[in-house]
Amino acid sequence: MGDEHVEEWLPQPDVADIELVKVLHALGDPVRLALLKVYADGEQYSCAPGALGLGHLHKSTVSHHMRIMREAGVTSTRVVGRSRYVRLRRGDLDARFPGLLDALVSAL
Amino acid sequence: MGDEHVEEWLPQPDVADIELVKVLHALGDPVRLALLKVYADGEQYSCAPGALGLGHLHKSTVSHHMRIMREAGVTSTRVVGRSRYVRLRRGDLDARFPGLLDALVSAL
Repeated sequence: MGDEHVEEWLPQPDVADIELVKVLHALGDPVRLALLKVYADGEQYSCAPGALGLGHLHKSTVSHHMRIMREAGVTSTRVVGRSRYVRLRRGDLDARFPGLLDALVSAL
Repeated sequence: MGDEHVEEWLPQPDVADIELVKVLHALGDPVRLALLKVYADGEQYSCAPGALGLGHLHKSTVSHHMRIMREAGVTSTRVVGRSRYVRLRRGDLDARFPGLLDALVSAL
């Protein structure tokens, strides 16, 4: 098997360890709230700023924001070779904070 | 009429001007989320740190946090003479972001 089949996940908190204050801090920023809007459909997205409608931002800036979201438990990041794919942790967040994501996404 | 009857409100955004990102930023902090828990019952509270369960914090620190919440549209502050009373803008927030406060308060 070649390396192209290796898949891993970047570190993220377990569902039970997701903290409300960190989720709110993660989303209390214009760029990260814009990312939530992108991710709201539950699909996975590549981390390329252009693919996220954030082509005006430097890649390192977008990476910084995505790291905060992942570490807060808002998103998951899957690594496949040199590519990274991000997805909203919809089920985990709904289980941990019922109604919160629905209310947020409706307000976007 | 004496000065003790003068009542005013500190500046706050109109309902239509309350921004989700500012509300989330206001609540994405441990002290301010603790204040939300105090205010969640909808009653008005004096700004004395001790009355808010924040006696370990300096008065200026608590004032700073309360200002961020007020300017974000989360709370209203009424001034009566030398006293200030704060209350959650429950109705305004429910109108602006349906379901958000309920989800947040349930998660506290």
